[in-house]
Order: sequence, then structure tokens, then C-alpha cells
Amino acid sequence: MKEISIVRENRVAFKNHVDDCIGTGRMGLALQSEYMDQLKLVQDEIGFSHIRGHGLFADDMAIYHEYENENGETCVEYNFTYLDLVMDKYLELGLKPFIELGFMPYKLASGTQTVFYWKGNTTPPKDYDMWCDLVKATLSHLMDRYGADEVVTWPVEVWNEPNLPGFWEKADMQEYFKLFKYSFYAVKEVDARFRVGGPAICGVDDENWIRSFMTFCREEKIPVDFVTRHHYTTELPDDVGHYGYQQLSNPEDGFKNLQSTRDIVDSFEEFADMEIHITEFNTSYIPNNPLHDTNLNAAFIAHQLSRLGDMNESYSYWTFGDIFEERGVPFTPFHGGFGLVANGGIPKPTFWSFKFFKDLIGACVFRNDDVIVTLDDNGIYHGVAWNPAIPGRDAELDLLLHLPMGMNGSEVCVTKKIVDEETCNPLKIWHALGEPSSLTEKQKDLLKSSARPYIEAERIVTSVENVSVSLKLRKNGLVYFEVEQITPQEDRGYSYERVIRGE
Amino acid sequence: MKEISIVRENRVAFKNHVDDCIGTGRMGLALQSEYMDQLKLVQDEIGFSHIRGHGLFADDMAIYHEYENENGETCVEYNFTYLDLVMDKYLELGLKPFIELGFMPYKLASGTQTVFYWKGNTTPPKDYDMWCDLVKATLSHLMDRYGADEVVTWPVEVWNEPNLPGFWEKADMQEYFKLFKYSFYAVKEVDARFRVGGPAICGVDDENWIRSFMTFCREEKIPVDFVTRHHYTTELPDDVGHYGYQQLSNPEDGFKNLQSTRDIVDSFEEFADMEIHITEFNTSYIPNNPLHDTNLNAAFIAHQLSRLGDMNESYSYWTFGDIFEERGVPFTPFHGGFGLVANGGIPKPTFWSFKFFKDLIGACVFRNDDVIVTLDDNGIYHGVAWNPAIPGRDAELDLLLHLPMGMNGSEVCVTKKIVDEETCNPLKIWHALGEPSSLTEKQKDLLKSSARPYIEAERIVTSVENVSVSLKLRKNGLVYFEVEQITPQEDRGYSYERVIRGE
Amino acid sequence: MKEISIVRENRVAFKNHVDDCIGTGRMGLALQSEYMDQLKLVQDEIGFSHIRGHGLFADDMAIYHEYENENGETCVEYNFTYLDLVMDKYLELGLKPFIELGFMPYKLASGTQTVFYWKGNTTPPKDYDMWCDLVKATLSHLMDRYGADEVVTWPVEVWNEPNLPGFWEKADMQEYFKLFKYSFYAVKEVDARFRVGGPAICGVDDENWIRSFMTFCREEKIPVDFVTRHHYTTELPDDVGHYGYQQLSNPEDGFKNLQSTRDIVDSFEEFADMEIHITEFNTSYIPNNPLHDTNLNAAFIAHQLSRLGDMNESYSYWTFGDIFEERGVPFTPFHGGFGLVANGGIPKPTFWSFKFFKDLIGACVFRNDDVIVTLDDNGIYHGVAWNPAIPGRDAELDLLLHLPMGMNGSEVCVTKKIVDEETCNPLKIWHALGEPSSLTEKQKDLLKSSARPYIEAERIVTSVENVSVSLKLRKNGLVYFEVEQITPQEDRGYSYERVIRGE
Amino acid sequence: MKEISIVRENRVAFKNHVDDCIGTGRMGLALQSEYMDQLKLVQDEIGFSHIRGHGLFADDMAIYHEYENENGETCVEYNFTYLDLVMDKYLELGLKPFIELGFMPYKLASGTQTVFYWKGNTTPPKDYDMWCDLVKATLSHLMDRYGADEVVTWPVEVWNEPNLPGFWEKADMQEYFKLFKYSFYAVKEVDARFRVGGPAICGVDDENWIRSFMTFCREEKIPVDFVTRHHYTTELPDDVGHYGYQQLSNPEDGFKNLQSTRDIVDSFEEFADMEIHITEFNTSYIPNNPLHDTNLNAAFIAHQLSRLGDMNESYSYWTFGDIFEERGVPFTPFHGGFGLVANGGIPKPTFWSFKFFKDLIGACVFRNDDVIVTLDDNGIYHGVAWNPAIPGRDAELDLLLHLPMGMNGSEVCVTKKIVDEETCNPLKIWHALGEPSSLTEKQKDLLKSSARPYIEAERIVTSVENVSVSLKLRKNGLVYFEVEQITPQEDRGYSYERVIRGE
Repeated sequence: MKEISIVRENRVAFKNHVDDCIGTGRMGLALQSEYMDQLKLVQDEIGFSHIRGHGLFADDMAIYHEYENENGETCVEYNFTYLDLVMDKYLELGLKPFIELGFMPYKLASGTQTVFYWKGNTTPPKDYDMWCDLVKATLSHLMDRYGADEVVTWPVEVWNEPNLPGFWEKADMQEYFKLFKYSFYAVKEVDARFRVGGPAICGVDDENWIRSFMTFCREEKIPVDFVTRHHYTTELPDDVGHYGYQQLSNPEDGFKNLQSTRDIVDSFEEFADMEIHITEFNTSYIPNNPLHDTNLNAAFIAHQLSRLGDMNESYSYWTFGDIFEERGVPFTPFHGGFGLVANGGIPKPTFWSFKFFKDLIGACVFRNDDVIVTLDDNGIYHGVAWNPAIPGRDAELDLLLHLPMGMNGSEVCVTKKIVDEETCNPLKIWHALGEPSSLTEKQKDLLKSSARPYIEAERIVTSVENVSVSLKLRKNGLVYFEVEQITPQEDRGYSYERVIRGE
Repeated sequence: MKEISIVRENRVAFKNHVDDCIGTGRMGLALQSEYMDQLKLVQDEIGFSHIRGHGLFADDMAIYHEYENENGETCVEYNFTYLDLVMDKYLELGLKPFIELGFMPYKLASGTQTVFYWKGNTTPPKDYDMWCDLVKATLSHLMDRYGADEVVTWPVEVWNEPNLPGFWEKADMQEYFKLFKYSFYAVKEVDARFRVGGPAICGVDDENWIRSFMTFCREEKIPVDFVTRHHYTTELPDDVGHYGYQQLSNPEDGFKNLQSTRDIVDSFEEFADMEIHITEFNTSYIPNNPLHDTNLNAAFIAHQLSRLGDMNESYSYWTFGDIFEERGVPFTPFHGGFGLVANGGIPKPTFWSFKFFKDLIGACVFRNDDVIVTLDDNGIYHGVAWNPAIPGRDAELDLLLHLPMGMNGSEVCVTKKIVDEETCNPLKIWHALGEPSSLTEKQKDLLKSSARPYIEAERIVTSVENVSVSLKLRKNGLVYFEVEQITPQEDRGYSYERVIRGE
Repeated sequence: MKEISIVRENRVAFKNHVDDCIGTGRMGLALQSEYMDQLKLVQDEIGFSHIRGHGLFADDMAIYHEYENENGETCVEYNFTYLDLVMDKYLELGLKPFIELGFMPYKLASGTQTVFYWKGNTTPPKDYDMWCDLVKATLSHLMDRYGADEVVTWPVEVWNEPNLPGFWEKADMQEYFKLFKYSFYAVKEVDARFRVGGPAICGVDDENWIRSFMTFCREEKIPVDFVTRHHYTTELPDDVGHYGYQQLSNPEDGFKNLQSTRDIVDSFEEFADMEIHITEFNTSYIPNNPLHDTNLNAAFIAHQLSRLGDMNESYSYWTFGDIFEERGVPFTPFHGGFGLVANGGIPKPTFWSFKFFKDLIGACVFRNDDVIVTLDDNGIYHGVAWNPAIPGRDAELDLLLHLPMGMNGSEVCVTKKIVDEETCNPLKIWHALGEPSSLTEKQKDLLKSSARPYIEAERIVTSVENVSVSLKLRKNGLVYFEVEQITPQEDRGYSYERVIRGE
Repeated sequence: MKEISIVRENRVAFKNHVDDCIGTGRMGLALQSEYMDQLKLVQDEIGFSHIRGHGLFADDMAIYHEYENENGETCVEYNFTYLDLVMDKYLELGLKPFIELGFMPYKLASGTQTVFYWKGNTTPPKDYDMWCDLVKATLSHLMDRYGADEVVTWPVEVWNEPNLPGFWEKADMQEYFKLFKYSFYAVKEVDARFRVGGPAICGVDDENWIRSFMTFCREEKIPVDFVTRHHYTTELPDDVGHYGYQQLSNPEDGFKNLQSTRDIVDSFEEFADMEIHITEFNTSYIPNNPLHDTNLNAAFIAHQLSRLGDMNESYSYWTFGDIFEERGVPFTPFHGGFGLVANGGIPKPTFWSFKFFKDLIGACVFRNDDVIVTLDDNGIYHGVAWNPAIPGRDAELDLLLHLPMGMNGSEVCVTKKIVDEETCNPLKIWHALGEPSSLTEKQKDLLKSSARPYIEAERIVTSVENVSVSLKLRKNGLVYFEVEQITPQEDRGYSYERVIRGE
């Protein structure tokens, strides 16, 4: 048993940006109703501020068109019909887009290389001025429709993972810098208030890319507004059939890598303390790793959420839901997709990691690698504890927290929400059902019912000024708790003790 | 441990009328939105066919009016504005009214005696012809609005509990028979297809009343269509403040009492096998007994539901929800009201007794005083087990069921839904919160989350032709289970075992 | 034809408080779902800020209770179950209550006099301290539940129409002043930020009451926060059956009466410029005058809305809907109720008077007794014109407005929404249907469809800097219009002219 | 004026299959929420029984997949994730699919020819057995999920318009017959109860195709279940920019063409009286003809609806909504799409042609080329009249109908719903607004408000046994009317005449 004594007046460093941004499958999928049902569930229960994904300029969004006029000249026209549909819905759900400029419309592309099942073109523009025109027309349209003051608050990121050759032809760094510079000034030309950043890299040759990018901005005197990168924490996959199996890497290695990015940026005097946004993170970086659907994932990610704010302004979980087509349309509801929500509207365990951190309001009074506790303005403690089964941890975690709660004899209510393999594990239920690919309504209802935290609450009369709260986490467990002083009411003649005695 | 071997071909007597009828607070309350929210919840999850309560002719329904015309004569007019609002909603929710004729409009009453906080007048009409006119006008209006063919399927019951002097002045039996006869013929005059019954008595002097009622119908040659009575199973209350505490009576005493009614009716040759409807039943007959909110109530009622169909055509739990004013407006959400749903939309444990019996489809293959099992057309077993902490029962119930499931080696999925004091006990959570009278939205959400069954599912490979299912019920526990042969699917490359090993 | 030239830079006095407050039937009716459906319609389409009605302390709200304790002493307890239900809904719909303290709980009353079908007790409290305790407990409860900072923004008015003996026993002025003083200080004791006013009188002996009330406050040094009164504009009714028929009075007489109240208040130096709230207004003051359902009412009220802000801070139309029981439950959907919405959810013509004034945004550039015009920040003109058939007005109103619109040759879109006896007159349709008391769904749909404004829009190319807009109002007509400069788009190849030529 | 005397006992031939089937854009679009919003509007107000469109096997539905197994063999697997999403929604909206087998999955195709912006592959299968496997697997999956008894009631049509080389490589008739035969027997192998038809041709070389198809079935002894064809009534387009402008053809030419198909089929003795389904019809066959958005289209289609049942079992308007991508994503809401509903959820005038024919219940008592009248079981007349501005018709249509209505002196209510260029013309409003491509919420609301029929109702006291109803249709007008005998109610004291006199 680990015993922890909280000091009420302590203020522990902790930046909770859990709800700042969430990832999504490509923008064209946002036209779908199942996508929106899942996003609505996420927003109703958690509530993120921004959403980021690929595909703004992918051909299914149908924005960029060329035609020949009567003089035989090639002309360009833009179609914002689908863009409006998507943005209307995002805003209705309380989400601002974290705009990613990409990928390349087929007609505007210089080459034919594509990425993903849905064939996003990942080559530079055939003409950088035409690219800038597209960027400017799109932002101007959005400002017309949603108001300039609103739209300029939407961050703009240039492209995605140009350090991988699949996402940017040849991973050509100089070409990316060119794209960045053109795009940066195009956006600023529309409205100087826009904030523009990059280079949106993932963890391959990342230190070199970050350092080179900052150097480029310094040399070109580009007043870049923020830096972006991605963060995944698994080893290489073993591919079998539709699936890839991976080992989790040591979380401290990941944090060190992020700190290194922070240090590199800060080493540029003019960019020191610049915002860094993790515009994608998750355990595994493939949308077919069953790990994503497990309680292990939930507990592991809770730990991440307790740390990522240390060096980053935001960290966007990749992704909110499982309507996602990068490797094709999933064959089953539990297929290891990135989503917080499985197809059919079933929250996965990791959904609750975000919900629980969202409820972690107030100032942090304690944090270690097992548990975090905050104290809000009404004197209520909120906490989250986690116990991922990773090397170096015990199977069970047994915590005893001593929390200062005012006078001896006061009454305290302790509520707990428990997510672990026994209490909140839809994957297990789905397996028991025979791993059906096509869920009946009855199966969906059962899975949804099984996918909610187990609730406990007890009333304690404190015998000293501290209340002691015991948390026993099973393997891969995750617990949210609140500790609140209460003033019990007892209606005239009501006796709970008598009721439960059955007299 | 009790071991039970099911024989697949067995057919055990069991009439499941769990969803035939449900009780309600007085009709005027059906105008309320909180009432309708609770009823909608009940209909969405359980789904009853009929609804029965008092107050059709109570003054808040505003149907009966008198005025003086220009010649100084007293004239009558009817107002169906509120009746339409109520009936529209009932039908929209899939409910037909089980019409109770009563109580007496103030202007039509012969006396001033009233019952309840809401002052239902319980005296005979000042003029029986005017009473008949009211009955006929009301039914005719309903037929105009909802169609004659529909409305004649709504059963009609004359008055409520005339064997109690509070509900019928002096409990005057002869006066009731007069009312019955007048009402019976008034209804039949509107349409002979209507079915009319009585005497709607509760368990006070009940054998005498039933025998006298049947005798009266025999002598007067009234072709009564069905008999009605009530059924409660608690002793006298100890009143403290707003509450009354009661002991449960022995369930077998209640069943004997019902059998006696059955026997009396059957002893009249012309009425033998006549339908008997229990138009009210519950444990306690007072709306302020905290027992109603407990897991004990749920387990006790489950047992009732396994038996009441033996002698009765329907049995209407009193009531679906806690918008109810017989003893005034409740001060707190958990005040021991009759409802399946507490105010705030929180299902009580007994809600699940009904839901579970509703899901008990197919033919009965086993029934005793602990458990009941059915087998449906698709070969799926459905069962309910219960364990109320009443004298003569052990604290825990440990069952082992052997169910024939086809060939050796087949795979079976066993799902369980568990409602007991640990897993589904909103009363306990409410107590831990300090017994608040005024629930915040956050408290409502917590209570609702805590008020749903705990889900378990496992996949079993049968090693013989039987599958053995173990059910361990804690004190006051209630379990629903299904046992189904499955054909497991396994998507190409998916290995659940590998997933949970975390490799 | 009346010709009007608008000057763009003109700023005409006009205070548009159309959406500040709306009236309601007694609070207990707010528990009803039909009530809430109507209120939701009103809020969705118009959107008021406050709601005011009677009955907070009426017995159906069940707040005040007495009981005898074990020592035989009378004790008081409060029940806020229904109050919470009502306030939750109001706030959910964006409404703050404009609290009226009244009437008297039966148990707290000094006498038995009641008002209305629903029997509001209108006698002084039997004990002023117990009254103050009730007031304080109620406000404290609301602050606990909804937050002190929110609840202190809810205005508090003491009682209703004490100048009428039916509403306040004997119309006893001194007794009312006593009630006011006690109540005022009770509220302030809870939180000094509350704003408290009175005397909530209607137009009987009103000048004397206002002057006496201000004098009383001066002499007692009560820092009253605002003055309230009512405003109706019809003569005495001719009663026939369920209905009362009345003549409209001259609107100018009403405005003079309001000005006189303004002048009296201002004549008290310490109260000069004090807010005056009209906490009730309408044409007729009886809930059974068919006038309320007509287009005449809509046009007459539009005129009122153009003037009432001149001397008053708010003016609360009595009432939003027709769930209302002061004279009993209505027999038919169109029964001359006060509501903007008829039972069945059918907007009456006057609904649109409020909608149209709500849409009258920007600064007023013209106002007379036929029409009012505003200009918003985007350069769009909004206007309302009305033509009630009252003595001294022509049957038709023919207006030609010249509006400055920028350069010659610009394109302008003029939209009109027309509500008159031909285009938006559900009463006429209901009459044609045979005046049914019980509407079928099909009839409701037809009536709703018939109850929406007729839409017109045209595109004009200005030939000079002014655009000329012609408004022809039929008898009892009401028109809303907008005039906006547009930048026409024309998609490549689209020709509207070719389309309508059908080529 | 044209005068028409109805004879009550007359029974005029008229088959009203208005609601049997409706067309849709490709199946993959059914995943979209805007698509479903439009379909829900259509189903709520009109309510069709079947839905038919292309693209079941298009690659965006992602059903057909090939992979290489560990032995290097090519294997096939099917993915029904998206199919389930679509079918669930259809059934939820009360629609059964009219299944069209097509087009060819890219991996299963023998060639690369595609049709449409969305690139449907229109070549024969590379292997007919693999095609049959796909068909069988798909139907079997649907039967598993939705029940065999349900799914076998879904009609199956083989391919689309094989008589056009764009839709079927080289319009190769023999190859189509081969596809038909293979498909026919594949479907019947799954369940012999399925009904299968073809050849789904449009009006090019259609008589030859129909005759050859029937001959082929005769010779091959294929017991085909029904015949399908398409029906469009416009001349060749003049293409300008995004649009195509066409002249309407003479409707009688179209009817003759349909009769010819009927005659050919009937000339085959074994196929005489076989069901013919028009699986597509509209005025124009291109999705960018502004005609579709006009009142002319509505009036012209009304005429079609009065005639098409004469020779056909069903006729499916192409299409319900404007989410449709055959020529790309529309640039504006009013772009001449096929839909009954414009993007943004705005009903077009033709929406009402279907609604009005749907309401045409009862037996037909009169029909000509201007008007049709039915009489229902309750003695209510329903009628539709239309006045398209096509050659040979007057600009205005003035009808006087004499309808037998029982005794002299009875009261009759006549209701009319009018759709014409003045009363219900959203295209005109959109033009006045400047033809915006991107509609604001306010503009959508205005357009929707303007897109509903104008309602009229009047009460007539008949002076003879006939009631005379006058219908004056403006150019391109469409009117629905009902004539019903009523029993007027008049609440005690209510006088409508007094109300409108304002006394």
C-alpha cells in the first residue's frame, strides 16, 4: 500500500489541456451521420474545443476545380458546399477547427503519389501561387460565412508529417519549407491575426527537422506562431491479417523526446517559450491495433494526460471515433481503431480517461505517476488514478490518500467511478458475444450498457481533520474520485438505517 | 448450492402478463411533463399495454360543469380539453387506458367526503341518471376522437376500493352495487362491445365483497365481463414524520388470498374462469414507505411476478412513477413512493424486475421460488433469479443450472444483468450524497448512472451437451441471464487472446 | 398613399424592450407539458428574457406546510420539489423569473377569500413574520440551487393588483403597504442586491395608488427599486355564455394614463427616473375575449409595442400561451385566451407582432403611428407597419418608403412577411372547419400551416440613391420588412431569366 | 371556365402508386447526414415504401475485397459495415430497398470504363461466378441481419440502363443477357421467393431492347418476375457552364412510349400483364437542369402522376433529394438537381405534387388532364388540379366543380393548398436574395417558410344538393383541395360573426 498525505495549500505544477483538441478521420468523413453521432457523444460527455484532421483539400471535399473557358483558357473555381456542411456541424457541436492545410487536390498536384486507402495526394502543388489562391479563397470564404473575428481564432497548421516520404514526396525538407513559407504568408495576407504553425512532424528524424525548421524560420525571419509535432508510444507492429500488434514503449522515453523538442525550440532565443502543439498522439500509430480498444490503453493514456501539459500547449488524441478509412473500412466494430468511441456509438475505456481528466477541475495539490489530485474553489477534491500493466509496475495498485477536510466530525461523501477489465470492458463483452462483425440493436445496447464506469459512493464521518480514502486499482484499472464535505439532510421521519434494516 | 437440471422439452405452467397494465397517480397529473418523462422512460425500456389510475372525473380534469341558462334552469356541459391532452399522450406512448370510472365531480356529488391530499370526492352521485350521462358522454367523446373500434377495447372498471369507507362513503355495499349496475348499462348502451368489471376492492373484508358481488350479478343477471381486486403484501405501518415503516407479510399468505378470490369466482358456474384483473399491487400500500426504493422490494416483486399470472389475467403495479400526490407532494426524490422511477428520472431497483420479466420470452421450462427459465423459438434461454431477504431464506443464494445446449464442443455465450445492493442501488448513493432533497444535474447523472444493472458476459465451450451456469445472488439480489449458442466469428488476423496478453 | 422619406443619419427615440418580459398563467401550470411546449415555441421563435405570473405561493405549488411536532407545537416546513421543476425548465428555456410574491398559502392566510377558478387566497398573512420566513426561505433555496449571483438578478414584485378587492381583501391600501414593507426588508435581508418593487396595480384608482405608494416609500424611507403597474385597453365586457365581448379603447387614452404614472413617479425627487415596469398588458383583461385571437389584436398590439418603451422599462404581454385557468379550463382551442399561442401549439397573429418587433434591430430612423424603421450595423433596414381597424383609420394603408441605399445601380433585396386576415388567420380556418373543440392532428397541422406569415421577396436595381418600397396593408394587416443591399452571385452558366422563360 | 359535374357513384380507372418507390443518389451518399435529413423530411411528409438507386457495389460501399493468403492465393472477403449503416437507416425511415445489382467493384471488373464523377465501373465482371458469389453473399448477409421473410420482399433489378454504352460497356445486349441470367439464378439460389427483374433501360432503342429481353427470357425459359424501364420527358440539352437547358417534350409522346412497352410485354403470352416498374422518371434526365426547381416542373409532374399508373406498377421519381454527385458536387442550393428537396432542407414545388397525390385517398370519381378527384370512405372529396405552362394550354385554368354533398342546407368545408409561382416558389426567393451559394441559417429559414403551400379554407352552406367549388389556377399552379361535410359546433356564447365585426 502506498500512503499519500495531501497538503491542502500545496500547488503542484500541472497544466490540464485535456479538452483543447481532438483528432478526426479525414474531413470528408465528417459528412457522415455515424461520424457525427459519435462526435456528438464525445462532445456531450467530454467537450473538446478544437478538432484537427487531414483532408481539407482532398478531392472528396470537392473544393478545387478547373475548367476551360470559352477562350480555351484554364480557369479555377472553388466549391464550398461540403465545407459549409462540415463547418456548420463542427460549430454546432462547439468545436473550432484546428485547420490543417492539406493534402493536394489532384488537379493542383505536381505528381501522382497518394497516401491511404482514400488516396490523399501528397505531392507539392504544380503552382505555388495557385496553391496560395486556394488557401486564401478558402479562408476568405470561411470568414464570410462565420465572421472574421471568429475564423481568425482557428489555428492553421501547414501539412502533415512531411518528414515521412509517404506523406510528403521524398520527405523533401526544403520543399516543405517552401510550402510553409508560401502558405504562411498567404494566410497572413488574408488576415494578419491568423496564427500559423508547423512542421507537424512525427517521431522520425524529428530533432533534425525541428532544429532545421526553427533555423529556417530564423533565417527567413518568418514569425511562426507555434510549433507542432506528433507523439506515439509503441514499437513496430507485427502484421497479421487485418491487424497489427505492437508493444508499448517506455513512457519516459516519449516524455524525454517531447522535452528534447521543447529544449530545441527554447534554444532559439526569438522562439523561446513558443507554444508547442501535439497535433496527434496515441499509443499506437496504426488504426488496426486492438490495443486501442483495451483498458490497458485507457490506463496508459491517463498517465500521458497527467504529463503532456508539462511541455506542450495542447495534445490532440488521434482520434475521437472509428469512422476512419486510412486502411479501408473496418470489418468489425472492435478492430483496434484510434477512436474514443467504437462504431455503434460504444465508448471505449479510453473515452473515460478523457472524461475523468476533464472533470479534474481546480488547482493541482498532488501528482505522481499513479495519481493526480486537484482541489476546486468549492473545496471539493477531484482525482484520477491509473494502473497500466506495463513493465515495472505491480499488478495491483493500492493507494491510501489522506485529505485534509476541515473539522473532526464533519461528514464527507466519497464518490468513485471505476473503469477496469471487470467493470467497464466492452471489448470483453464483444468477445463473449462471438466477436460479431454486424451488431444487432440488442447487442449494441448491451455493449453500451457495459461500457460505463462502475459507480461507488460512501458517506464517511471524519474522526480527525483528515479523511482517508482508499483506492484499490485492479490491473489496467482507472479510477476517478471526488471527496466532498457535505451537510447531510434528513427529511422528517426518514431513517436510512431503518430502511436498510428492513423494519 | 442448489443444483437444477433443466429439461429442454419440459413445459411448465407460467403466464407472463408482466406488461399488461401499470398503475399511475391521478389522471390530472398526466398533464405534467415530469410525469410524462418518467412514463416515456418506462415505456421505452419496458413497454406496458394499459395504464390505470384514479381521477378521470376528479375536478382537476374539469370535465363536468353545470350552469344556469337564461330560463334559470340548471344545465350540464362537458369539457374534454384536458382529457384529450392526456389520452393523446397515452396513445402516443403505446398505452391504452384501463378506464376507472371515478371519483365524483364535486357538482355531481351527493356529499362532501373526500379522499387524499387532492380531495377526490367519494360520495355517490346526487343523481344516477346524470352520472350515466357523464359516463356516456365521456365514452362517446373518446370514440369520436380515437375511433369506436379502438375505444371499445379499453376495459372499464367501476370505481375504486368501495370496501373502504374512505373511498366510498360508509363502504356501503348496496350503494356500490347500484352504482355498478347503472354504470354497467350506461357503458353498454354506448357500445355493447365494451367490457365492464368491478368491484375493485382491496384486501379488507374481501371474500365477503367478492362473493356478494358475484351473487348480485347473478341475481340481477348482469353479464359482468371481469372481476377486479387489489393485492398488497405488508403489515400495518409505523408512522414517523413523513414516513411509514412496514414489515413485509409472508408472500404465501398473499397468494392464498388471491387463490381464494379465484375459487369464489369459479364457484359461480356462470362466472367460472372469468378474467380476474389485479388492478393494483405492490408491497406496501402507502406512498411513503422507503421500502419501495430498495433492492429488497425489487427481489420480492420478482417473486410476485413469477406467480401472479397463475390466477389472474393481469396485475398492475402501483405505480410507474413518483409524480403522485395522494399524501401531498414528496419532499425528496427518495421518499418511498410507489414508482418504478424516482423523481428526477432515476430507475429504482424494481424497475428492473419488470424489465427482466418483460425479457423472459418463450415457453417456461423451469420455475421455483428462486428462479424461472424460459426457452425462446431461437433456442435461447432467458431466466430471472431473485433473493429477497425475508424470513426463511438464506442471506446468499447460490444456484447452478444445467442447461441442454446441443452438441459437445459448441460455444455458448452467457450474459448476466445484476441488480443488487452493491451494483444497482441509487438509494444508497443518494444517502451517501447526504440525502439531498433538491438534486443538482450532476447528482441526477450520478444517480442515473448508478441505477443500471451490472453487465457480465462470458463465452463457454461446452464439454458435454449441457452448459452449467452458476448464479450467485447476494442479499436482495436480482439477476437476469441469457444463455445462447453462438457461432464465433474471428476477423482475419484477430486474436483476442493476444490482445489481452498485451503482446 | 402616404409617402415617407427616410434620412439615414436620423436617430429617432425608440426603446425596444419587446423581449424583456412575458406573462404566464399561474406557476403551477408550468408543470404541464402542453404549457412547456407552447413556451418552448415562443422562446425558439421570439425569445424573452423574463417571465412573470401569479401563484408562486399558491397551494398547488405545495411550498408551505404546517405540522404538529411531538410536543404539540405547530411547526413550519417548506417543500421546493415543484418549484425546482418549474425553475429548471424556465432557466433551460433562457428565462429568468420576474418573481411575484403571492398569493397566500391557505395555511398562512388570515382569511378565506379567494380569486379565480384555481382559488388563489387573497388575504393578508395571519402572521407577518411567518410570511417573511416563507419569502426568505424560498429565495435562499433558489440561491442555493441556482447560485446567489444569478438569483439576485431576478426582480421581485410584491403581490398583484392590490387596488382591486378581489386580489387583496378590501383593496386595503395600508395593509398592502405593510405587506410591501415587510416583504421588501425580508428580501433585502437575504441579499441586499435583490431589486424589489410594487405596487403592481391595474388601472383602477391608479393615480391615487401610485402617489400614495411613492409617498409611503418616501415617508418610510424605503429605497424601493422600481415601480410596477398594468395596462389594458378595452372597455367593459358584454358577457354571453363563456365569452366576454369588449370594445377597444382609444390607444392614446392608454398612453396618457401611462404618462401620468411616469409623471407622478418623477415628481418625487428621490424617485425621479425610476424604472417603471408594466408587469401585465394586453388589449382585453379577460381570458375569454375572442379579440385576442384576431388579426385586429395583432395590429393593435404592434402599435403598442412601438410606444410602450417611451415611459417604461419593460412591458410584459399577458400571456405567452393559453394553458390558463383563471376562468376554468377552456372548452375550445380558440376561446379568446390571452396567449400568443393557442392550445395545440398554433401561433396567433399577435405572436408575429412580437416576433417582428424582436427582429427590429439597430437604431430607429423613423417612427409614426403606422410604421417604424430601424437601421442595423450592417446597413440593413428593418421595419414593421400595422393597420388596425379602429376608429379614425382608413380600411387600407398604402405606404411608400424612400430609403437611402448607397449608389445608383446597386442591387437591393426587399423581403416582406405579411400577417393579415387573408394570409395568416388561423381563427378563420378554425371557423371554416366548424369551430371544433377537439382538434385532430390533421386539423392542428392545417391550422399551424395557416398561421405563418406570407413571404415575399424581390430584387430591385436602384435607379437613384434611394430605393422605394411600397407597403400596402389590408385591414388589420401587419407587415415586417427588410431592405438590404446585396451582391448578386450568378453561378457559371446560370440564368434565372432563362429558367423562368422555360427555355 | 371549365365546368365539371361529378357523379358520386362513378368509378373512374386510376391507379395511385405515387408512394411506391423513390429514387436516390448512389448508395454511399446514404451515409451522409444531410442526405438522411432530406430523406427524413420526405418520409415524414410524404412517406414512400421503397427506395432505388445505384452504387450498391460501388467501391465507396467497400463491400468487395481481395487479398493474398499465406500461400499466395487470391482470396475474396466481404465487408458489410457500410451496407449495414445504410440499410439500418432506410428501414428506420420505413423504406425497403428496391435493390439494383451494380455497378462493378473495381477489383471484380473486366475493364476500366467508369461512369459519373464518382466513377462507377460499368464493365462486365472478370468472372461471372465471383459476381454471383458477391450477389449471394450480400443477400445472405441482409437476410441474416434483417430476417429472411423481410428481405425476400425487396425487389431485385439487374444493372442500370445497359442500353447506353456509358452504363454498360458497348451497350452489349448479349453480355447483359448473360449478366441477367447469372444474376437471376444466383438470387433465386439464395431464396426462391426473391423477385428479380430487368432490363432497366432508358428510352434509347428501347422497343428493340424490351422485345429482345422478353424473347431471351422466353427462349431461356427464365421466369422473370417483372420488367423495368425509365421515363424522361425532355429534349436534348443546351449546355452552358454548369447547366443544361432543355425543352419539355409533349407528355402524350411519353405516354405512348410507355404504352408501347406495355404492349410489347403483353404480346408475350407467358408474360402478359407482368408488372412493369418505372425505376426512374422525371422531366429532365440531367442533374443540372434548373427546370427541376420550378413550379412548371411541379405542375407537369402532377399530370404525370395522374397517368403513369395506367400501364405501370410503380414509378420512381428520380430523386428524393439533392445530395447527388453524378456530375460532381453542386455549387449552389438551387442548381437544377433532381431532388424533391433542395440542399438545406428546402422542399421544391414538385415535393408538393407527391404530397398532394399521396393525400388523394379513396376511389377516383373524376379524372381528366386538368384535375383528378377521389372520394374516400368518410365521404370526403380529395382533388388535385394542375396547370403547367406547356404548348396548347391557356395561361390560367378556371375550373368549377359541382360535387354532390347530401341534403340542401348542409354545411361544407372546402380547404385548398395552393402551390404556384406567387405562393410557394423558393427559387424566386433565392433569386431575390442574390442567388447565394452558401445559405445562412436566416436565409434557410426564409426559404423554408416560403416553400410551403398557401392555405385557404371556407365554410359553405349548400343551397342545393351539390356544392360548387371554384378553382382558379395561375400559370404553373398546382392545387390540392378537400371538400367535406361538417357539423359545425358553436361553443356557448361564441359568435364568429361578432368577433370579426369587432364588437
